[in-house]
This record gives sequence, structure tokens and C-alpha cells, in this order.
Amino acid sequence: MQPVDLIIFGASGDLSARKLFPALFQLDRAGLLPLDLRIAAIARDTIDLDQFLSGLRERMTGYMGDSAPTDKEWEKYARLISYIKADFSDPKDYQKMKDWLDDNRVSLFYLATPPSLFAPICDYLSQENCLTGDCRIVLEKPIGESLETSKVVNGTLAKYFDEASIYRIDHYLGKETVQNLLALRFANRFINSQWDQSCIDHVQITVAEVVGIEGRWSYYDKVGQLRDMVQNHLMQLLCLVAMEPPNSLEAESIRDEKVKIVKALRCIDASNVDEHVVRGQYAQGWSLGNPAPGYTEEPGSERDTSDTETFVAIKAHVDNWRWSGVPFYLRTGKRMAEKVTEIIIQYKELPHNIFGGGANLPNKLIIRLQPNEGIEMTMVSKRQSLKEKLALQTHTLNLDFRDGSDDDRIPDAYERLFLDAINGDQSLFVGREEIEESWRWCDGLLRACQDQGVSVKPYHAGSWGPAKAEILIEKDGRSWHV
Amino acid sequence: MQPVDLIIFGASGDLSARKLFPALFQLDRAGLLPLDLRIAAIARDTIDLDQFLSGLRERMTGYMGDSAPTDKEWEKYARLISYIKADFSDPKDYQKMKDWLDDNRVSLFYLATPPSLFAPICDYLSQENCLTGDCRIVLEKPIGESLETSKVVNGTLAKYFDEASIYRIDHYLGKETVQNLLALRFANRFINSQWDQSCIDHVQITVAEVVGIEGRWSYYDKVGQLRDMVQNHLMQLLCLVAMEPPNSLEAESIRDEKVKIVKALRCIDASNVDEHVVRGQYAQGWSLGNPAPGYTEEPGSERDTSDTETFVAIKAHVDNWRWSGVPFYLRTGKRMAEKVTEIIIQYKELPHNIFGGGANLPNKLIIRLQPNEGIEMTMVSKRQSLKEKLALQTHTLNLDFRDGSDDDRIPDAYERLFLDAINGDQSLFVGREEIEESWRWCDGLLRACQDQGVSVKPYHAGSWGPAKAEILIEKDGRSWHV
Repeated sequence: MQPVDLIIFGASGDLSARKLFPALFQLDRAGLLPLDLRIAAIARDTIDLDQFLSGLRERMTGYMGDSAPTDKEWEKYARLISYIKADFSDPKDYQKMKDWLDDNRVSLFYLATPPSLFAPICDYLSQENCLTGDCRIVLEKPIGESLETSKVVNGTLAKYFDEASIYRIDHYLGKETVQNLLALRFANRFINSQWDQSCIDHVQITVAEVVGIEGRWSYYDKVGQLRDMVQNHLMQLLCLVAMEPPNSLEAESIRDEKVKIVKALRCIDASNVDEHVVRGQYAQGWSLGNPAPGYTEEPGSERDTSDTETFVAIKAHVDNWRWSGVPFYLRTGKRMAEKVTEIIIQYKELPHNIFGGGANLPNKLIIRLQPNEGIEMTMVSKRQSLKEKLALQTHTLNLDFRDGSDDDRIPDAYERLFLDAINGDQSLFVGREEIEESWRWCDGLLRACQDQGVSVKPYHAGSWGPAKAEILIEKDGRSWHV
Repeated sequence: MQPVDLIIFGASGDLSARKLFPALFQLDRAGLLPLDLRIAAIARDTIDLDQFLSGLRERMTGYMGDSAPTDKEWEKYARLISYIKADFSDPKDYQKMKDWLDDNRVSLFYLATPPSLFAPICDYLSQENCLTGDCRIVLEKPIGESLETSKVVNGTLAKYFDEASIYRIDHYLGKETVQNLLALRFANRFINSQWDQSCIDHVQITVAEVVGIEGRWSYYDKVGQLRDMVQNHLMQLLCLVAMEPPNSLEAESIRDEKVKIVKALRCIDASNVDEHVVRGQYAQGWSLGNPAPGYTEEPGSERDTSDTETFVAIKAHVDNWRWSGVPFYLRTGKRMAEKVTEIIIQYKELPHNIFGGGANLPNKLIIRLQPNEGIEMTMVSKRQSLKEKLALQTHTLNLDFRDGSDDDRIPDAYERLFLDAINGDQSLFVGREEIEESWRWCDGLLRACQDQGVSVKPYHAGSWGPAKAEILIEKDGRSWHV
């Protein structure tokens, strides 16, 4: 394998200090980085390498706490890192990169920058002959804000990079539990063989955040929760739950199956949007015991009223053989009661209850990403009791098998994703077609909301969203897991 | 509910001291016996009640160890018990019982006697007018030694008792884990919905004993392992695994389904016995570290050679829609390597293995009655490892949920069965038709062995039976779980 150079644009930004450099450090600590890896940290601060490193270490230590590098570890890790001061819009500065790069090595460009810089950086890299060797590019959402704009971004990338060299991160895919879902689904016959409409009643995907807008009001107000969270994260989770078994674990195989799911999503249009979509916007309330402002009262708010949703609940349908008649309830919002990311697979009720009473408790598979990553199954067993004959009880079974040994630290998603990008494995990255098909579906939904005037319903900060979100699922005789 | 009298024939026997009186005591300790229950201990020893009680307490304490009754508990318990000295073949002694009985109460006769006494006791009870009130009878295997002789026993019972008043014990059915199997199968959709030939590869039922003939050579040599263990215990376990979901938990519903399974068992006759049955007889060997004699060298042996099997392995088929093509491998023997009673449900392999390597480890549901009662499932999950991508591991999941609270003593099977007999619940007792159909199948199998000269293969005491028993399953590409 060719040696790899990792070039991080935006190396002094928040993501770099909070996620990227800590992840690379953990890989180094675990001895998983190639011995000859080089890292170029690129930022526009006029500082030297030592200043960069000492600032970085301080910030990393703040984030990492007990697991922060020791002096010895830091010394080893810091040796991998070079610092290149560059203004991303100054062609001359790309010359510095060119000098640093080596055509005999793979150049792995990581754009930890605002999305508006994706295209210009690519253009400059090409123009200044930085893309002459074997190059890969890594970038994160948002890839556009609509089908149209995402096509522009993907089009620019495609000018300079093969699809096989473009690594679009959805960090949810790097999570242990999400990968464990694949093992659970495809390595257990007794799970796999009933993963369909014959046994499953419905699926819920909840991504609830406690935080509000966090100082990015003017950006967020143009975007809203659907574009910010559903188009990418919730869609990816939905795809991994719903996709057919892929032919292999190769990226292409998995992507093919995911795209099929996005394409099978029933369009939400003017005819059905009222029944299938609830939008909300948080008003004043209480968040974790403190008073919290309403959305339009947040610092940075530019208007007294806004029609941007900070919450959305959707009843989606995957129109294929496997999922016919099985609703997928999606829900995500800011300033909700708890920070929860979880997928609930609820099995159907027993066709016939021979135990009487409240025994008909459906099995549920719970795939939790936040808090406490893990996979659980609720099961029913006999209560050990002589008094009551065949009295039942529900238990929650841990399907995670974390064994408490050395390896019980759950690696951060970025560790897995860095390692895969370095090794050239795209299977946990998102393909162009998935993104564009997802935008197509979201654009249609948003258009329908607009056309039908689906207004944002206020909900109290610190609640579970507007009452209509409860009605969306309860009118089907079901209820949200939390 | 009418008050109940319990009349135990054979009250000074081994079963009474080892199982029956301890079980009744545990029920008393737990406050589960009716307050007005009376117990008549019937035996022919010329002793008085105090002598009977002190002898009983001493023996019970020997068996129960730490859980033996305290003085205070014993005092309370002993108050329930009367002693009636009786010779079971002397009509006059039944008059003593008649005097003790009360037509306003339910008489629950428990025959802890040799089976040869079942019919005479019933005859005398009737003749001496002991059956004038509401009567039930409880008895244990063997109910005959063939279809013909079992019909005689059942016929005698039927002269004096309704089928609804006859409680035939198979103590395996009283075990917590066997009842938990019902909860597992019929209260968990995701177990229930794939309990068939589409998902299950095969079933194994092993009942391995370490002991030899234990002083009952002359009886055993006429009977053999098939009649002693398969016709009753293994058949009951097979039925509970294989039966269709019953309409209810009523005895009749469950019995109907069990009978259907016995009737659906493919006949083993001269045409297929060679492929489906292996018989064995233990020769000298080592049992738990000590030298052990061969079967014909056991104390009490009456012959130098015998054609009686002490081991049998059977490949059985349930010819119905659910189990078409799913073999049930049955195996039971004396003087085997370990004391094990377990049922293994092995799921099919994955249709397609996308994980490569040894990942295709089939899920197994393990229902263990001995040692360590419990239910487990083997599952496959992702090993938490950055180094290996999607490396899998197998884990064994405890589906038992014993919670370690007060109630973590596993009640003995007889506790459940006594309580049910007192309450008039027959669902864990065996019906006449099941027994007779089971004999029909076993008789056919034995006849085929005889006709085809299927000889007993020697195996070493302390082994897992003759090599042919391994071949029986391995020629199908499968292997015994232990």
C-alpha cells in the first residue's frame, strides 16, 4: 500500500480540536496509524508549528480529559504533524502545499471548513497542481442545501476526483453501534429472517437534541431541521435499517442498497403532507432546569417571527416488498427534553395471546446511539413464581456484549472513519447518489409543506415537540418509545 | 373452591422423603398451601404419627441441607399430616382411610407406589367406598410398558376416574425452564414467528445420565432405555418444542397439540430403522474418575449377556407442515460422560455470508434442564475493534432473567405439580392419548429393531455412547452439541 499524507484544511477550527486530532491521536496510541503517515495541519493563523502544537494540545486536553495524551505519547504523535499557514483563497499559499506534497504518496485532503469553501479549495488545489498524485478528498455535510445545490457541489468534486476517491462523512455511520447493527442484521439468521413486514410493526427513529441553535441562527434559519438532520443522519439510519442484505460489504454493494431505499421512499406531496409531516418551533421553556429562550429570542436571531422548523416528525413509508405497510416514524428536534438518538424496531403483537392480561408486550429492538451506545432487545419470559402460574415479565436484553475488557472504550466515530479513509475503504461513507436522492425526497416534502401551508407549531423548549407529533403516531394506535 | 385432602400412598418410600414431602413443605413455607389442607401419609410401617414424623424429618433434612425446616416451620407443617398404617392389599385398612376421608372435601390420591399396585389400589379404593366424593388421582410413570399394557392401566383408572381427574406426572413438565420455554415460544413474536422449517435446521434433545442401573437391574433389563426414558421424558420435551401454538393454556388445548405431534412422528419400521436408530450398552469404563462396571457386571445382573439397550439415539421426523425436513435428534443413555439434559434448537446458517471467514456461526437456542437450568441463545455481534473491521464474535445470551432477588431459588418440579394438582389444573400433566400414541410409536420402533436385528453396540462407561451415535448425526453434516 502507498504511504499516506493527510492534509487537514481548517486545522485550527473547532472540529479539528474536538474530533479530528483526538481521533488521530487515539489511532496513534493504539498503534493503528501507518508508521509513515504524515499530517499537514493547514490554517491561516500566523503561528509556527510549536505554537500550533501547544495550542492544539491544550484544547485536546480540555476535550479529552483523562484520556488526553501523556507527555511521551504527545511527543510521538506531534512528530507526525507539520503546520502550513495558508489563506485558502490565496493561490500562492497552495504552492506551499505543493512543496510539501509528494506524488509518490497518497494525498488525503480533509476539508474541515465551511461548505462554501469546498468548491474554491478544490479549484485551487487543481489549479496549483496539488492533485497530480493519487488523491482522495474527505468532507462533511452539508453537501448542498437542496438537490440543485448538492449537484453543484458534487459536480465540482467530480471534476477533480473519481467518486471512488470522494469520502463524504456522515459521522453516525462511524459509530460502533451502527456497525453492530449490520452484524446483528446480517450475521444472525434468527434476526435476519424476520426483518420485514411479516414480523415488524413499525420503526421509529428519534434524534433529539437538548441544545438550541448555538450561535448559528442566521445559517440555521435558512436551513431548518429537515435539511440539517433528516436529509443526512436520519436518512442514513433509515437506510441501514431498511436496506436489503447487500451482496457484500464493499462500499458499492452497500451504497446500491441504500440508494434503493431512498428511491423507494413514498413521495410526500401536497396530497398527503398534512397526514405525514408535523413541523415545530421551540418557544420559551425550560431546558435541563434552566429557563431557555424561544427560537426567535435566541442570541443572533434576526427576526421576531420565523417559519423555520426546529422540529420535524414524519411518517414515512418505504414502498417495497419488505416494508409494505410498515411505517417509519422519524422525529428530530432542537431543545427537546433529552439528548436521545435511537432506533426502535417494534415487532408485531402476538397474533393470539394465550397468557391473558397484559402479556401481549411486543418485542422491541432498541438501537441506541445516544446516550449510552448500545443495542437491546425487550423480551418476555416466565416470571419465576409458584404463586402465579405462567405469569410473564418483560426484560431488556443487552445484545451488545461489551465485555468490560481492555477494549471497552467505545471508539469515536471519527477514529473508524479516519482509519477507513486512510485504508481506502469507502463502505462507511456516503455516495453521491444517496445524497442526491435524499435531497430529491426532502425537497419534495418541503415544497409540499410550503404549498399546503404546513405551519410550524410552537412547542416548549425542554418538551418532546408539539402535541401534533404525538397525534401523528397515536392516531395509528402507536406511541413514541420515549 | 372445595378444601382438599391429600392422601399419599407409599409415604415412607424414597420418592416421598426425597421429593414429595419436601415439595409440600416448600409450598407451606411459601404460604401457598390452602390453609385447610390435610395430608394423610399412608404406609405399612407399624409406627405412630410421631415416629413417622420424626423419621420423615430426619430424612428430609438429609436431602434438603440448608433449606431444611426450622423447628418452628416443622411444627406448623407437621400439623397438616396424619399417619395411616395400611397394607395396600388389605381391604380392612381401606376402611381406616374411609373413616379419615370427608365427602365434602376433594380427595387427592397420590400413588407413590410401584406401578403394579396402581390397579389394585384403585380397585380397593372403589370397593371400600373411598371414592364417593370428588376424587382425583396422581401417579407417575411407568404407565405400562407397551401400548397394550398402558391401555390396561389407563383402562383401570378410567373405570373409577374421569380423564379430567387423572394427573399423570412427568416431572420434567414441572421444571421452571420447561414452562419458560412456553413463555419464550408463545409470548415473543420474534421467536414465535420463525419456529419452523424455514429457519430451524434441526433440534437435538439429549438426556444423559452418569448413573448406571442403580440396583434395579432385573426391572431395567426387561425395559431398556427407550421405554424408560424416550417414551415419556424425551417425548414430552419433543412435544413442547414441536407443538403448534395451543388455542389456550388449558390442559385440553395443550394436550391436543402434543398428541398431534406424537401422531405426526414418522414411523420407524423395518425399512428405515437402520438409518434412524442406534442402540448401545455400556461396557466397563470410567465414571467420574472411578472404574465402572459394564452393564452385565452390575450388582444384581442376572445374565452374562443382554440385548437390552442402555443407550439409544434416534433421528426422528415430525411429518407436518411446520417441521418438514427438520430432523429431531434424540439421545439418552446411562453411564454417560456427564449428567446433561438439554434441548438445542439450531437455526439454519445464513443464506449468504457477507462477513467472510468463520462468521457463519448458526444461532442456537439452548434449553438446559440439567445442570444449571436455564435458556440461552448464541448470537453473533461485531467485535469492538478498530483494528479488524466488522470482525464478528459469538456470544451466549442468557434468556432466563433470574434476577437474583428473593425468588432466585428454582422451585422443584414437584412443587409446581403439587400446587397444580391441588388447584385442579391439569395443563402440566400428561393425557391418556399422548401416552398411548407415544407407546404406539415406541412399540413400532422396538419391533423394527427386533425384526432387523439392530444390535446393541458396546460403549465405554463414561463416554458419549457408541461411535455409531456420532455417525447418525454426522452423516447429515451436523454434530451433537456436547
